[in-house]
Amino acid sequence: MSPAPDSADLGFARLDLQRPRRTGQGETVYGAGKTPEQLLSILRAFLAAGSHALVTRATEEQHAFLLAEGLPHAFNPLARTLSVRAPRVPRPRLGGLVAVCTGGTADLPVAEEAAETLAFFGARVERHYDVGVAGLHRLLSAIEDIRRADAVIAVAGMEGALASVVAGLVSAPVVAVPTSVGYGASFGGIAPLLSMLNGCAEGVGVVNIDNGFGAAALACRILAAKNGKTGKNKGKHA
Amino acid sequence: MSPAPDSADLGFARLDLQRPRRTGQGETVYGAGKTPEQLLSILRAFLAAGSHALVTRATEEQHAFLLAEGLPHAFNPLARTLSVRAPRVPRPRLGGLVAVCTGGTADLPVAEEAAETLAFFGARVERHYDVGVAGLHRLLSAIEDIRRADAVIAVAGMEGALASVVAGLVSAPVVAVPTSVGYGASFGGIAPLLSMLNGCAEGVGVVNIDNGFGAAALACRILAAKNGKTGKNKGKHA
Amino acid sequence: MSPAPDSADLGFARLDLQRPRRTGQGETVYGAGKTPEQLLSILRAFLAAGSHALVTRATEEQHAFLLAEGLPHAFNPLARTLSVRAPRVPRPRLGGLVAVCTGGTADLPVAEEAAETLAFFGARVERHYDVGVAGLHRLLSAIEDIRRADAVIAVAGMEGALASVVAGLVSAPVVAVPTSVGYGASFGGIAPLLSMLNGCAEGVGVVNIDNGFGAAALACRILAAKNGKTGKNKGKHA
Amino acid sequence: MSPAPDSADLGFARLDLQRPRRTGQGETVYGAGKTPEQLLSILRAFLAAGSHALVTRATEEQHAFLLAEGLPHAFNPLARTLSVRAPRVPRPRLGGLVAVCTGGTADLPVAEEAAETLAFFGARVERHYDVGVAGLHRLLSAIEDIRRADAVIAVAGMEGALASVVAGLVSAPVVAVPTSVGYGASFGGIAPLLSMLNGCAEGVGVVNIDNGFGAAALACRILAAKNGKTGKNKGKHA
Amino acid sequence: MSPAPDSADLGFARLDLQRPRRTGQGETVYGAGKTPEQLLSILRAFLAAGSHALVTRATEEQHAFLLAEGLPHAFNPLARTLSVRAPRVPRPRLGGLVAVCTGGTADLPVAEEAAETLAFFGARVERHYDVGVAGLHRLLSAIEDIRRADAVIAVAGMEGALASVVAGLVSAPVVAVPTSVGYGASFGGIAPLLSMLNGCAEGVGVVNIDNGFGAAALACRILAAKNGKTGKNKGKHA
Amino acid sequence: MSPAPDSADLGFARLDLQRPRRTGQGETVYGAGKTPEQLLSILRAFLAAGSHALVTRATEEQHAFLLAEGLPHAFNPLARTLSVRAPRVPRPRLGGLVAVCTGGTADLPVAEEAAETLAFFGARVERHYDVGVAGLHRLLSAIEDIRRADAVIAVAGMEGALASVVAGLVSAPVVAVPTSVGYGASFGGIAPLLSMLNGCAEGVGVVNIDNGFGAAALACRILAAKNGKTGKNKGKHA
Amino acid sequence: MSPAPDSADLGFARLDLQRPRRTGQGETVYGAGKTPEQLLSILRAFLAAGSHALVTRATEEQHAFLLAEGLPHAFNPLARTLSVRAPRVPRPRLGGLVAVCTGGTADLPVAEEAAETLAFFGARVERHYDVGVAGLHRLLSAIEDIRRADAVIAVAGMEGALASVVAGLVSAPVVAVPTSVGYGASFGGIAPLLSMLNGCAEGVGVVNIDNGFGAAALACRILAAKNGKTGKNKGKHA
Amino acid sequence: MSPAPDSADLGFARLDLQRPRRTGQGETVYGAGKTPEQLLSILRAFLAAGSHALVTRATEEQHAFLLAEGLPHAFNPLARTLSVRAPRVPRPRLGGLVAVCTGGTADLPVAEEAAETLAFFGARVERHYDVGVAGLHRLLSAIEDIRRADAVIAVAGMEGALASVVAGLVSAPVVAVPTSVGYGASFGGIAPLLSMLNGCAEGVGVVNIDNGFGAAALACRILAAKNGKTGKNKGKHA
Repeated sequence: MSPAPDSADLGFARLDLQRPRRTGQGETVYGAGKTPEQLLSILRAFLAAGSHALVTRATEEQHAFLLAEGLPHAFNPLARTLSVRAPRVPRPRLGGLVAVCTGGTADLPVAEEAAETLAFFGARVERHYDVGVAGLHRLLSAIEDIRRADAVIAVAGMEGALASVVAGLVSAPVVAVPTSVGYGASFGGIAPLLSMLNGCAEGVGVVNIDNGFGAAALACRILAAKNGKTGKNKGKHA
Repeated sequence: MSPAPDSADLGFARLDLQRPRRTGQGETVYGAGKTPEQLLSILRAFLAAGSHALVTRATEEQHAFLLAEGLPHAFNPLARTLSVRAPRVPRPRLGGLVAVCTGGTADLPVAEEAAETLAFFGARVERHYDVGVAGLHRLLSAIEDIRRADAVIAVAGMEGALASVVAGLVSAPVVAVPTSVGYGASFGGIAPLLSMLNGCAEGVGVVNIDNGFGAAALACRILAAKNGKTGKNKGKHA
Repeated sequence: MSPAPDSADLGFARLDLQRPRRTGQGETVYGAGKTPEQLLSILRAFLAAGSHALVTRATEEQHAFLLAEGLPHAFNPLARTLSVRAPRVPRPRLGGLVAVCTGGTADLPVAEEAAETLAFFGARVERHYDVGVAGLHRLLSAIEDIRRADAVIAVAGMEGALASVVAGLVSAPVVAVPTSVGYGASFGGIAPLLSMLNGCAEGVGVVNIDNGFGAAALACRILAAKNGKTGKNKGKHA
Repeated sequence: MSPAPDSADLGFARLDLQRPRRTGQGETVYGAGKTPEQLLSILRAFLAAGSHALVTRATEEQHAFLLAEGLPHAFNPLARTLSVRAPRVPRPRLGGLVAVCTGGTADLPVAEEAAETLAFFGARVERHYDVGVAGLHRLLSAIEDIRRADAVIAVAGMEGALASVVAGLVSAPVVAVPTSVGYGASFGGIAPLLSMLNGCAEGVGVVNIDNGFGAAALACRILAAKNGKTGKNKGKHA
Repeated sequence: MSPAPDSADLGFARLDLQRPRRTGQGETVYGAGKTPEQLLSILRAFLAAGSHALVTRATEEQHAFLLAEGLPHAFNPLARTLSVRAPRVPRPRLGGLVAVCTGGTADLPVAEEAAETLAFFGARVERHYDVGVAGLHRLLSAIEDIRRADAVIAVAGMEGALASVVAGLVSAPVVAVPTSVGYGASFGGIAPLLSMLNGCAEGVGVVNIDNGFGAAALACRILAAKNGKTGKNKGKHA
Repeated sequence: MSPAPDSADLGFARLDLQRPRRTGQGETVYGAGKTPEQLLSILRAFLAAGSHALVTRATEEQHAFLLAEGLPHAFNPLARTLSVRAPRVPRPRLGGLVAVCTGGTADLPVAEEAAETLAFFGARVERHYDVGVAGLHRLLSAIEDIRRADAVIAVAGMEGALASVVAGLVSAPVVAVPTSVGYGASFGGIAPLLSMLNGCAEGVGVVNIDNGFGAAALACRILAAKNGKTGKNKGKHA
Repeated sequence: MSPAPDSADLGFARLDLQRPRRTGQGETVYGAGKTPEQLLSILRAFLAAGSHALVTRATEEQHAFLLAEGLPHAFNPLARTLSVRAPRVPRPRLGGLVAVCTGGTADLPVAEEAAETLAFFGARVERHYDVGVAGLHRLLSAIEDIRRADAVIAVAGMEGALASVVAGLVSAPVVAVPTSVGYGASFGGIAPLLSMLNGCAEGVGVVNIDNGFGAAALACRILAAKNGKTGKNKGKHA
Repeated sequence: MSPAPDSADLGFARLDLQRPRRTGQGETVYGAGKTPEQLLSILRAFLAAGSHALVTRATEEQHAFLLAEGLPHAFNPLARTLSVRAPRVPRPRLGGLVAVCTGGTADLPVAEEAAETLAFFGARVERHYDVGVAGLHRLLSAIEDIRRADAVIAVAGMEGALASVVAGLVSAPVVAVPTSVGYGASFGGIAPLLSMLNGCAEGVGVVNIDNGFGAAALACRILAAKNGKTGKNKGKHA
């Protein structure tokens, strides 16, 4: 039997198949804008190479197509994520705990994207949703739990203040995700983005608007640094 | 002796002198861009008509000129306010208490402009400075006092979150003043302005960036409404 | 019979049920983005706790679902509000009158959201619609009525000037609501927002674009201050 | 004696000298950024060709230099204009009246630039300053006079509403000039610019921020159209 | 028979019916956002009062409804205008000629809105379409005709330069209309708007993006000034 | 001898003095806008409480005043930092290495602020300056060294691309700092800020423009997480 | 037989038919916003005049209509281009090679528009897709090929850095095309636009967002300059 | 004697000295923000390596210091450039002609920066200044000369239209440079930047605001492509 190839050129995408074999970690794919057929090809290539794969911004249509084609997978419609697991390949384990907090219920899709990504890479996740600063008692009653985390992801739209308030209450690194929730002068997330960049609490790093995946990816690097696993980068998400 | 005139046309400004006699309240002047000589003429006209007067955005140069010209007045360089009192005219009294809060020490000039304006119109003022949300215990330890106020003015720059957090903790109307304090992506106050407009706590009205005077004027109207004193407008500030 | 619970965790929302029993006031819910099923659960929980409830940004679909499920309620499609009344619980009464003015007919949905909210909380409301400044005689013929109000809400799109002109004619606090009505360089409400923030009349507080609910909430706080009812905050709207 | 040349190339500027002889009108020069020596050369060339000349954005330094060099001229420091008159050349006359209105006293430099330009080209000018909409009675008491004008120039900063309100009260064309007066969210004149573009009164044309000269130039074209003097353009201002 | 009423309150709109009888001019209505039923009521009220009426931003649906209801009218789908003529009432006549120019074919809807409005008010109109500056010979070959106009309307999107170039070639007043045509960094018309405001040619007044009606209204005022018909304003368009 | 007080109210600032005794870490102060006298008071209070202190955005004037007043301190004019060390108090030690990279030489002040802050808190620092992506070989020749770091700080102005390229080459968390270096359409740092937020490499958290201190604070939290030192927050910087 | 006419006025467009006969090059048409019938008329006029024609932003609907009408043509749905070839007219040949690079797969439609345009005008094209800077090895492995090109087109969305990095590695002129790919703070392409304008590598010229056609047109001029074919412009694209 | 070193690390800059020896071309330095001492060190290092050097954004202070230190150089205060020539090293020669055009006289510093850079690299330059589109005859009378150029640089501020108009008249590649000249809604060059990006003439590439150097660098690459000199990049400018 011929050895597995090192890379796969699908025409519309070039996949590095050597890496999954080498690292034991899973691969990620940005689902938006890809046809169901393209997605199927990519996922089959990863599975053939022995790699788990996570798709973000996956659509119902992609999910239905994979179902119809008989590809076993898990789909989370709220998080818009979809994952496949390579058989007999152990799941990755990242030591450490990440707390994912949201200001309101409308921030849930972004927070769930982050939580699913963290789980995919083997981090432990605790969710603290609907703890926005306009009703401060909700946050204060959860703060002792949040303080146990190694990293905190703060997801908030109109009240971008959540990141600043949380960072003032914990000492772990805080990853702030502005969301496009809101209306009027929220301007699709600019208001919480600016608020998060200008918060005067220390220890906050901001990612792009609605970028739950990016927040999780940064938190995973923080956990990996905790475990001494730094060095060469291991992939891209596109 | 001829009766006092109803108005004064100083060439560069038209003053309504009937109103101060009628209302017993003081008049206000926007000092920025006026020459010391112009300011002196305006103040003398008001005093001659029996009106107290408050100047906002007053400069050291205006203060020195008035001193040299022998016009008794009070000057607050931090608030950049300057006031004159008409002899034998009682001071106005507005029943009610206003709490003026700031996020940091750099917001003090704006807060003091508000506080001086409130005092000029006869409101009681309590200051709660440096209670920004990045160190939440400072705000929480003052909140019982703030809750006694009939209106709250929240002055904050980079952490515009103060207005939202305070409004979630009290039930009085909150007047939010974004300040141009900060750097980078604060953009001269746009960040806290947007944050204040988008805060999800109820009961917040926003005024222009750095507009401590405007915040106080709105708070005074709220106190006047409390005292049943609404109806025709009583003046302009320009 | 077991006593009513203090709070309800519906999974997607945490409700404080002690407060309605304590305050006798109604609760408010932001309807946008909630499924009809979620809305029904929330409303039933409030009714069970003896609380009236007002939903803003309610949709036709939510209305139809509640109808089909047999939940008695009032729906105002122009205001996009929906309210339920707890049986045998008296309606709240807020002493005082609020005048709601609009620049044009296109501002009506936002103005009606404000008016419905005011009515829900027991304020008296007078509507003065289509009194924009481009036809000044319309505003001037209504101004005596507007002057009787304890607070004024000025709703305007392209001609955000309404707030400034009204504030120059009355002495009550003015809550300004920019609307996204208009086209071209209105930029979804930025033009009236800036106009309202920069108006040189005193006594104006601005809320977010199209935020009729927020304007009413601020006006209610002003009426409550008038009646000496300040202190702890009583809820959140999300 | 040799005939006058048709054009002059001064190295830093190319002047069309045939036009002034032909039209009998004056020429205009944008003074900002020109050295006093450059300005002197330009003005002497125009005078030699028998043309009056108006300089806008002129500086004290330019004025002093011309004085020292013995060039007779008129300087208006408020308007920042400077003009020279060719001896024995009749002044232009433009039939018609232009009303120049301002919202506040801080708009005066821009209004005066417009008024000086109008006078230079022979239009009759009436000034109505400090008639901003926050004190509406000031505008209403002047409106009958303003209605007699063939064109109206409305100069306003923070309360850009002046253009819209005036256009609703008169039927002449209204030229709106936003000014950079104001602070905070005025953003150097963007707020009144947007307000003027979005005003719902008909009959308003907007020029650039602080561009008093441009407003006057447009008003002059309107007067010329009234007098049937259209056709080829007669110059540039740079 | 009872005399015609002076005004009509349709609930959703207040109409001044005395004016059309007095001025003999037509009335205008902004059609966007009005239901076909509302529009029909308004038009019938105007016709009953003996007034012609022009609707801008009219829709196919409104047109079809009026047809079905048997109201005679003219509909221009490109211009999105719709007009009704009161029987036995003479059409207005405005002495003077307006040239309407566009940069490209995509600007036609806005230009046609202007042209239809001009025609409704009795101005003579000449169209010069597709004369954008990227192919300068097209403009130059039309310029002699354009110079005969009493006012010029320059409609342009991506190449907002048309207004500046035309104003440099004619001496009539130029009304500039930026259009939202274009893509990328056109930003819905901001690019040509800024270009038109900053053009260094004199004699240009700018109206809102895509506002063909507004441009025509300003041109009509210029023609009216030419004919000495200024004074009180005659209506509003909303 | 009385025990040391728990806090100090200096009038213009409230200091928590219990914390430094408890944590053994130093305190930080934002120097901009503080008078030399204020700064001296603050530093003496910290030293009396046994705390080291670091001042960011310190000025030459503050440095000179402290010198004149005899307070031993270290001043780094490039980084604009100033630090004092409490005698006999051991320096903090944070296990781990941070690589600080810059795109060009103009980014040095921001990078040095980060480096000085890292050193103050006991992190090891390696500098890789002038490794911008326009001359890629410079970055590639340093990349092996950068890969040894536990966290990377990427400081870049016009070419904000540095963060994205570095994050694609290493697997440690990357803290991105946009700088206001550049001209034209850099808009004071908006260009690199947007570039850093939108970079498609994973693992990047962005801080405010020019905020070298904030980047270092986040990197310190990452190192602390690595060492298991999370929990309650330990201070604020204002 | 009468000679071919020099121009064609189709009512909605004026075509210069002399030019294609004279230059032997093809003509281009901007398809967006044109009806299928209009497009057919234009293409038939060009073919009748012996000119090839390329349509950009062509739609499926236009393609289907041309098919149904029996007009032979080539349609590229990814590039949204459509071309017709005049029988017996030789194809243009432009000496030189252009490399078209993209950051990701989502940039393909813009890149293909550029590539189709280049091919239409006779340039040789090499595609290097999916070589974004977050995975630098992909770009580095293609760089030797890219260096052989006479001009490079760099198409990139979120990571606008591609243009800067490529320009630092090659010495040919680089045409940068920002794309509206991305989300959040990409703002429809503003982020890569600013990044490309501010890149510190030399030799980059930027075209409008998503303007693949414009990039190709500039590259064609560079090739023509290489071949000494400059002088009068040969057409417009609208 | 030891051979010349391959590179020089000056502490604040790393210079590649092998390249100048290899290419025979000169090096460029961005002068802004560099101390006179730093600049002297850099220039001496280049001269020692046998390389000519051009400094952009050079200051009077740098010029005076070099003079005092006895370093022979040429300084152009208008262009803010400064150059040194290595003795006995031939000057570079780039075959081809570049036309540099400006809209007005205020654009001269940017245009001269471009012209000096072109001359430094050996291109022939023709200047066509003050040919803005508001006085079109000036441009038309120069157009035949401009058509002889292999590349055109169009420098314009308020009337960014110059690039579009020129590109419509010539067939050479056009490099557009927006300038920050102007006031009001020019916004420091944003208006001409957007105008240039949106111009509908083909063949325009835009560089950063005021970036005369960048425009020249792109033009040089176009000339080099013409001469077949592409391949590896030869340097950076920082």
